[in-house]
Amino acid sequence: MPKQKSSSRKKSSKAPSSVLFHADATDPDMLYFSRFDAVDPYLAFSHRGRKIGLTSSLEYGRMVAESDFDEILLLHEVEAKAKKRFKLNGKKPSRSQLVRQIAAEYKIKEFRVSDRFPAGLAFELQDAGVKVVPIIDGPVFPEREIKTAEEVELLRKGNEASAAGFRVVAKTLAESKIKHGKLYHNGKVLTAERLRELIELATMSKGAIALHTITAAGEQACDCHNAGTGPIPANELIVVDIFPRRAADGYWGDMTRTFLKGKASDAQHKLVKTVRKAHKLSIDMIKPGVAGGTVHEAVEDFFTKEGYETVRDSDQPRGFFHALGHCIGLEVHEDPVMRRGSKWRFRKGMVITTEPGLYYRGLGGCRIEDVVHVTSDGCELISKAPYRWEIA
Amino acid sequence: MPKQKSSSRKKSSKAPSSVLFHADATDPDMLYFSRFDAVDPYLAFSHRGRKIGLTSSLEYGRMVAESDFDEILLLHEVEAKAKKRFKLNGKKPSRSQLVRQIAAEYKIKEFRVSDRFPAGLAFELQDAGVKVVPIIDGPVFPEREIKTAEEVELLRKGNEASAAGFRVVAKTLAESKIKHGKLYHNGKVLTAERLRELIELATMSKGAIALHTITAAGEQACDCHNAGTGPIPANELIVVDIFPRRAADGYWGDMTRTFLKGKASDAQHKLVKTVRKAHKLSIDMIKPGVAGGTVHEAVEDFFTKEGYETVRDSDQPRGFFHALGHCIGLEVHEDPVMRRGSKWRFRKGMVITTEPGLYYRGLGGCRIEDVVHVTSDGCELISKAPYRWEIA
Repeated sequence: MPKQKSSSRKKSSKAPSSVLFHADATDPDMLYFSRFDAVDPYLAFSHRGRKIGLTSSLEYGRMVAESDFDEILLLHEVEAKAKKRFKLNGKKPSRSQLVRQIAAEYKIKEFRVSDRFPAGLAFELQDAGVKVVPIIDGPVFPEREIKTAEEVELLRKGNEASAAGFRVVAKTLAESKIKHGKLYHNGKVLTAERLRELIELATMSKGAIALHTITAAGEQACDCHNAGTGPIPANELIVVDIFPRRAADGYWGDMTRTFLKGKASDAQHKLVKTVRKAHKLSIDMIKPGVAGGTVHEAVEDFFTKEGYETVRDSDQPRGFFHALGHCIGLEVHEDPVMRRGSKWRFRKGMVITTEPGLYYRGLGGCRIEDVVHVTSDGCELISKAPYRWEIA
Repeated sequence: MPKQKSSSRKKSSKAPSSVLFHADATDPDMLYFSRFDAVDPYLAFSHRGRKIGLTSSLEYGRMVAESDFDEILLLHEVEAKAKKRFKLNGKKPSRSQLVRQIAAEYKIKEFRVSDRFPAGLAFELQDAGVKVVPIIDGPVFPEREIKTAEEVELLRKGNEASAAGFRVVAKTLAESKIKHGKLYHNGKVLTAERLRELIELATMSKGAIALHTITAAGEQACDCHNAGTGPIPANELIVVDIFPRRAADGYWGDMTRTFLKGKASDAQHKLVKTVRKAHKLSIDMIKPGVAGGTVHEAVEDFFTKEGYETVRDSDQPRGFFHALGHCIGLEVHEDPVMRRGSKWRFRKGMVITTEPGLYYRGLGGCRIEDVVHVTSDGCELISKAPYRWEIA
């Protein structure tokens, strides 16, 4: 799906020395660091290249078996030492006292923390005299930008879950009958909600959870984060954006196809054809050394040349008003993003979406999105699903 | 599921005046505040009792239609003003400049932020001279502890999704055949993974996503956060813990049942019977005015009296070594928690799990978990599923 506009982030110079985390597995940096699927937030830190996690006896066995930690500290043992150090008379140490105990034990002078680190704990540590340096000049792990072969494989699988969703959409539309402009499937009105349910079950059967799936037809698709509601109309473009997260490892898929049940008008045909051409154009351009902005701008220029005008920064934007693509990995939306003026350049090993789209009230919307892996001299498509869109 | 041990949190005195957020819908306070299911983090704040959100044109339409905001600011408009104020010569304002623009416009002298607020932005604001006060002495919205009738209903529905999971487990075990100590379902070995898949599809069909479901048999259940792997053995206790999150609104279910396929031993019978008695005992005790710790301690004393000894704070704890229950709402694990020594008292409108459990290597584990809603003179069960556990 298209990324929401956000403030820019500068790139970092080098990896930090001692990073401190207090997070669960929904923090992608913590998951990258630990590879541990934790339900509740816990403390972890790096020290001289080693990864160290802190857990209660409840999670200890699972952490030993499943995580990437080199050392696992038992919470009650660190607590016991902190009680002694801070003379707590049996009272439970606070989170910051636990961190100070660790800092003393491992002789750590300062901790670097990610932007996502909890501000409450950061201030607590600051007040207690612990030096906390936020990593604001770039990503916590710059190496996350370049995917390993194993990561590419997991992203391929994430996209297979999206593809399973499109298969069920195509099948459902093919099986549907048109009556008075509405679709009927198995005798019932086919709604955006029902289509979403079918998609979610399909991605789930591939081990991935799809939240926020978009099945938006006609005007609805022009508000391009509208999930879609109510009956799917015949002869209207239906934007279907499926971005599931793999339950086993947290890697994502993110693909969009546009469908239509019935008969498309000439204007709809031209719109879809133009988006598909822009899609191919972008894939042909992506290779190491090319700037992200160059590809976005080429697509926008192509649209303008074909007569599709863009108006952004309005409460009713139209044309091609979102970014062309975003990196993807342990987050569905990772930096860097391809947008106008993006100076960063493609590097081998990046995995990024390309998702040109055009949206006009009265006509409808079309978006086609795939995920590519940047190779040494171009890019390979790691998301695969047919582009057939007009279903009789 | 049992909550991981965490450092204690003190209660707050009063609700904050102007709260600032930068989060997506995975932050439960942000979701409570906005009721907006956002994929990407965005800025929002309260001002004189009004809720104000900041969004790009991409999300604007959906935010107007779906959120609880009283006022929605368009990002590009705030950016334009910030560019002028900070003389940025067309450069994009940073997040902290956007916040400073808002502070100037709304005459806000200080922002209160939750523990989860991103530390990077908090430090940035601090450096820019904006006063940021972390809310560390209690919850951001103390009123979240007391559930409205509508919230209780959504939690009831969340637990209906858990119950759908147990139905499929009971059915699958009933349909399974035992051969050489293993279960076979539809001719295939029944594994913990397969059982989990069936549960996930069942909760999904009730509109709720179950991650981290536990289907742990025999020894595996003694490591009580172990999800369970491999063939489900006959004649062994199987702990099944299902805690799905409703996709539509973010409210959770959380229930546990213990099953056994085949024939239970006397020791297994006694274990399950004892846990079930403790479960009833806890429900009978929960009512306004009673301290959380009192209920936990009564259960632990009962277990000890029945001959079930507890050893915690070990890498192989045994007995009843986790908390008796935790509140639940927009988080599966909310404060307060019932554990030894908990001084807080039940109040009408709280919704909490009670989940006594006993675990012994060699014998196996048993946990029974339900969710109750505290009423004026007791509590009502809002999770419903049969307790039948031995399936021939």
